[in-house]
Amino acid sequence: MENRILLPDTDLLMEESLEKIYGLLEEKKYFQARDELLKYNAVDIAEMLEEITEEYDYERSIVLFRLLPKAISVDVFAELPSDDQVEIVNRITDKEINFIIGEMDFDDKIDMLEELPANIVNQILEKTPKQERKLINTFLNYPDDCAGSIMTPEYISLDKEWSVRQALDHIKKEGMEAETIYTCYVRDFGRKLIGIVSLATLVIAPDEEKIKNIMRTEFVFAHVFDDQEEVSEDFKKYGYLALPVVDNEQRLVGIVTVDDILDVIEEETTEDFELMNGVIDFEDSDKDYLDVSVWQHALNRLPWLIVLMIAYIFTGMIITGFEAKLSEVICLVSYMPMLMGTGGNTGSQASTLIIRGLATDEVDTSDALKILWKEFRVGALIGLVLSIVNFARVCWLDGNGVWIGLTVSISILGIVIIAKIIGSMVPLLVKKFKLDPALIANPAISSVSDIIALGIFFAMATVILGL
Amino acid sequence: MENRILLPDTDLLMEESLEKIYGLLEEKKYFQARDELLKYNAVDIAEMLEEITEEYDYERSIVLFRLLPKAISVDVFAELPSDDQVEIVNRITDKEINFIIGEMDFDDKIDMLEELPANIVNQILEKTPKQERKLINTFLNYPDDCAGSIMTPEYISLDKEWSVRQALDHIKKEGMEAETIYTCYVRDFGRKLIGIVSLATLVIAPDEEKIKNIMRTEFVFAHVFDDQEEVSEDFKKYGYLALPVVDNEQRLVGIVTVDDILDVIEEETTEDFELMNGVIDFEDSDKDYLDVSVWQHALNRLPWLIVLMIAYIFTGMIITGFEAKLSEVICLVSYMPMLMGTGGNTGSQASTLIIRGLATDEVDTSDALKILWKEFRVGALIGLVLSIVNFARVCWLDGNGVWIGLTVSISILGIVIIAKIIGSMVPLLVKKFKLDPALIANPAISSVSDIIALGIFFAMATVILGL
Repeated sequence: MENRILLPDTDLLMEESLEKIYGLLEEKKYFQARDELLKYNAVDIAEMLEEITEEYDYERSIVLFRLLPKAISVDVFAELPSDDQVEIVNRITDKEINFIIGEMDFDDKIDMLEELPANIVNQILEKTPKQERKLINTFLNYPDDCAGSIMTPEYISLDKEWSVRQALDHIKKEGMEAETIYTCYVRDFGRKLIGIVSLATLVIAPDEEKIKNIMRTEFVFAHVFDDQEEVSEDFKKYGYLALPVVDNEQRLVGIVTVDDILDVIEEETTEDFELMNGVIDFEDSDKDYLDVSVWQHALNRLPWLIVLMIAYIFTGMIITGFEAKLSEVICLVSYMPMLMGTGGNTGSQASTLIIRGLATDEVDTSDALKILWKEFRVGALIGLVLSIVNFARVCWLDGNGVWIGLTVSISILGIVIIAKIIGSMVPLLVKKFKLDPALIANPAISSVSDIIALGIFFAMATVILGL
Repeated sequence: MENRILLPDTDLLMEESLEKIYGLLEEKKYFQARDELLKYNAVDIAEMLEEITEEYDYERSIVLFRLLPKAISVDVFAELPSDDQVEIVNRITDKEINFIIGEMDFDDKIDMLEELPANIVNQILEKTPKQERKLINTFLNYPDDCAGSIMTPEYISLDKEWSVRQALDHIKKEGMEAETIYTCYVRDFGRKLIGIVSLATLVIAPDEEKIKNIMRTEFVFAHVFDDQEEVSEDFKKYGYLALPVVDNEQRLVGIVTVDDILDVIEEETTEDFELMNGVIDFEDSDKDYLDVSVWQHALNRLPWLIVLMIAYIFTGMIITGFEAKLSEVICLVSYMPMLMGTGGNTGSQASTLIIRGLATDEVDTSDALKILWKEFRVGALIGLVLSIVNFARVCWLDGNGVWIGLTVSISILGIVIIAKIIGSMVPLLVKKFKLDPALIANPAISSVSDIIALGIFFAMATVILGL
């Protein structure tokens, strides 16, 4: 058994195994190939089947899938991307499908059904017992991104009058998946949640102790329609393994477990990254980059680029208004990219820190004045350093003299300070209006900074150079 | 007890309670104020004490802290930021300190000691039993950001010859923190890790079953010096609650639990956000935005801005070289911000998607060709749309005629395609060299796009306008 221990560099091991499997498949030694796969756990087997599909086709990977022991094939199926699930459902027997669907965890089943085409979903639902079908339909109807859409109805429910021994026997009988067993829930007659007990407490408590004496009656819970991002904030804040989800009548309807929260965090983080850089995911899917079509990619990225065209009409107008004076001192043009770029970069540095600070609860809209004062000083300090550097550059490196040097360096001081203030204040303002601060994409901050940079630069040029 | 249930909008409840506490503190009713605090759990009490310190001063919040029941005060202490911990350590009696430090979870203790000033650390270590002192010193010496620095040595160790009953009795006797109990570890005589058993398996298994028959011998583990980011990838991939950490001889030295991984993910995500927008955290601290000094903020943001100044010398040079021609058709200047800005924005859209895709394993360096082909088509599509929009603007809105319209719109098509390709390929290249792709900050992508945008624009102007 020793050789089944996975070394930390699983990736390397898996690559070796894949090479071996490719060789075995060439020789049509499917059973030996399957045995090689079985050295790994379900997550890794799923990953390797995907690789095999990519290397050959669905035929071979599905033959391998069907050769897996039934108990393992369920877990592997749950880990596969939805495209592969559809292929498998289309190519295996009804009996095999029914076994797999029957054995899957409820939350994995919902995830799968959400992604499958409607005809296959109906086909599967037809073969599901009536009561479960009803439950599935309820779950499928929760809006995406809410607590209801990520919860599972599989949890351990205890009676407050039971003893610890009775509770442990009950758990032994129910025997569920590990992640859903670690917190048990106590409901009153109206199914209202009245307390929680962790499995750790049960195991440590004396056998005869009553549940009502050891259950915790103060606990945090989520509502079915709470946004999944809020739920994940609670997990981060309190460090829980599971959180109960209740409906409007405070009745327990399901639980959210921490392993699903890790996926939510990844999804939400990706969304923030994309929003902040001007990409809006209109499909609102968790599709991989390569699976998104060229059209959809273009559609996701065009809106901000088009909106910004309007901002550029303003920069164009400012420059046109100053054209006559510019052609008198044409060398000023060569400093425009630096001034606009620095404004944009320094502004998005500030907005990034504030948007991320708001997301992690480090700062709050009530800190606006403190942030303003801090960014003003940071801006002044950075502006001063960049002023000196650029004064030197303009005067000596470019040989454009002291007056143009002064114009550029005083402009940069003003631009950096104002860009820092705008970059830090706009996200707070957006948050104040209860919108997602990441919506203020950095491209927008850059464009506003561009306009301000040109304004300041031309004003300084007019005053200092007397244009 | 009903009123101790926390509603989902805890924030609102906490604000009300804080108002009440402020009133009570004014009247010097400390015990009543303490009782109000006790309605909440340790995480929330710590947050409220911070608020009280901010509203008044340390005096009052420390009086409240000392009035907390001892068992709760330990948990609250562990949740406080290190500044507050230092204040408390300085103001309470040695006996109180010893109690708190003695009772803290090992990993919280290490976190605290890492942040406290050296003299206080020594003072605390003096009073720690010799064996624990040795262990603490080992843990304090693990480099930041590695698995060793986030693990805890508190885990349940079982003998493979034990029965399930014996194992459960052993756990009951040890009685540890919930998050560390849910996976138990089986070691051989040389302390080498040979298997793991989840508490769920133990509770469900028959009492007489031997551990060696139910333990899993295939499992994933981390090495003490593994990067914490890699460890968190394993948690995301496999959905575990805890991961064993071994040393060079495969001996079990500690475990990492999922609640600490949530903090790691937040920290690493913040670092990526900042890096991508040109902020380098030289202190490498998890200090809050407001706690970082103005000097440090400026220092973190200046390097990229200075480096980019060099890029701007190039843009300046390109413009200077074209100055004579520019002054002939001065209206070209008014399109420069749009062309450079669009190049920068469209390039950082691509780099964001690829950097994030690499971080979440959606894409890999081996996909380079597929990505290149996809970005080429996306760029062509977006470029075409923006070309048409801008041709219309230049010809009719600005009235600058067909030839300038063609110059601008052909330029933009080229700029978008090249910016998409650079934005997507550079992160892959950086990854190929085993560096963090987030290091290629978007400001750098923008600057490179600026240079390319000017080059293309001036080349087009020369050809089409015959300058």
